[in-house]
Amino acid sequence: MDSMGRRRWAIAEGYIPSQSTGPAPAMTSHETACLLNTGERDAHVELTLFFKDREPAGPYRVTVPARRTLHLRFNDLQEPEPVPRDTDYASVLVSDEPIVVQHTRLDSRQAENALMTTIAFSE
Amino acid sequence: MDSMGRRRWAIAEGYIPSQSTGPAPAMTSHETACLLNTGERDAHVELTLFFKDREPAGPYRVTVPARRTLHLRFNDLQEPEPVPRDTDYASVLVSDEPIVVQHTRLDSRQAENALMTTIAFSE
Amino acid sequence: MDSMGRRRWAIAEGYIPSQSTGPAPAMTSHETACLLNTGERDAHVELTLFFKDREPAGPYRVTVPARRTLHLRFNDLQEPEPVPRDTDYASVLVSDEPIVVQHTRLDSRQAENALMTTIAFSE
Amino acid sequence: MDSMGRRRWAIAEGYIPSQSTGPAPAMTSHETACLLNTGERDAHVELTLFFKDREPAGPYRVTVPARRTLHLRFNDLQEPEPVPRDTDYASVLVSDEPIVVQHTRLDSRQAENALMTTIAFSE
Repeated sequence: MDSMGRRRWAIAEGYIPSQSTGPAPAMTSHETACLLNTGERDAHVELTLFFKDREPAGPYRVTVPARRTLHLRFNDLQEPEPVPRDTDYASVLVSDEPIVVQHTRLDSRQAENALMTTIAFSE
Repeated sequence: MDSMGRRRWAIAEGYIPSQSTGPAPAMTSHETACLLNTGERDAHVELTLFFKDREPAGPYRVTVPARRTLHLRFNDLQEPEPVPRDTDYASVLVSDEPIVVQHTRLDSRQAENALMTTIAFSE
Repeated sequence: MDSMGRRRWAIAEGYIPSQSTGPAPAMTSHETACLLNTGERDAHVELTLFFKDREPAGPYRVTVPARRTLHLRFNDLQEPEPVPRDTDYASVLVSDEPIVVQHTRLDSRQAENALMTTIAFSE
Repeated sequence: MDSMGRRRWAIAEGYIPSQSTGPAPAMTSHETACLLNTGERDAHVELTLFFKDREPAGPYRVTVPARRTLHLRFNDLQEPEPVPRDTDYASVLVSDEPIVVQHTRLDSRQAENALMTTIAFSE
């Protein structure tokens, strides 16, 4: 299949609640960037986090292999630093191959989980 | 009415929980691709699924008749293979006529259902 | 303010649950097309509904006055016919002035409500 | 990082429930415009609110510093006037620098919160 998507994406919302209800890891409150690489070459992605009152963090580096999807939990990012909980952030993803990015949050602060999603902004 | 939309669409998020609460099929946890064909010719759509660690599955073939909408549950796909539950996936839809695609999940793993939706990515 | 937006919009998802929990009308299960007209001329909008297995319904006609927003509940459409409950549908909106369209559902079939939203598809 | 985004954005949905369940401010029912400025210059943003049956309110003025994100709660807007609760509204944001805008609502009218999000409309 031909490659599809764009190389620069932004997600202006970001917030990982420190509290969760229900069995981990499925029901742990989390935010995810779902990355899809439909092309024939691996996509090397650099992710940068933006905050309200400090300099950006990153780049975080992940690879989305050819013809694969990677659902990247922001909760799992460790290098160069973990993502702070209960803190507003935003993210930009720059890839060397076209990809498609969709953002989700599962929020289980209360007994019943809430979900939200959107295709990210690209240009 | 004139045809409207595009021929290539992608949904980077995909995950069908194996657990549900409430009466089937309405409240069964499910993901749906809502397809709209406003034109005067039937749209033949090929859907391909992408995964984290295996080759893509498909194509799955569906037809959206002229001037009709088809809300396709990923749960119902059987040929060439069912969609695995509790597994990250993504999807690409290629149509021979312009269509509009919107993605939804109803998640009823917990007692109260959660919903999310987004217009899919097109180019 | 200058006018902003587009003249043709589509929402591929549509489904009004017949069941609700909580005080009406706020917590009645409903779908809404939020229409924004930032311009200096009233926008006359024709809405057409598409179904799975019958011809489209409409046009429904609404006016969004200059510099106003109209949050149109599909539940309230009566002419030329009400929107059937528990039935898949989709919608197209055609305006004579640029507008912006956002889609929402509040689903209160279960005790706790669920929400979803997306900017509609435009071209 | 290069600047990213657009200068004119619209969110057609707007509604702040007057009721909430759970600890303030995190679980207070709220709507947010998440603004991301990836560029090297501060972004000065003017926000205008549109209503169903009165003239628009604003402009509200906020600054998103260079390389920062601002998650602006509509609940917190005070000048030139607060945002009425339980009232349909819509919003337009005009910036002197490119930004990315994402809209969210956390709705805690009932015991368990609901969430929704979408990238706003830009042109």
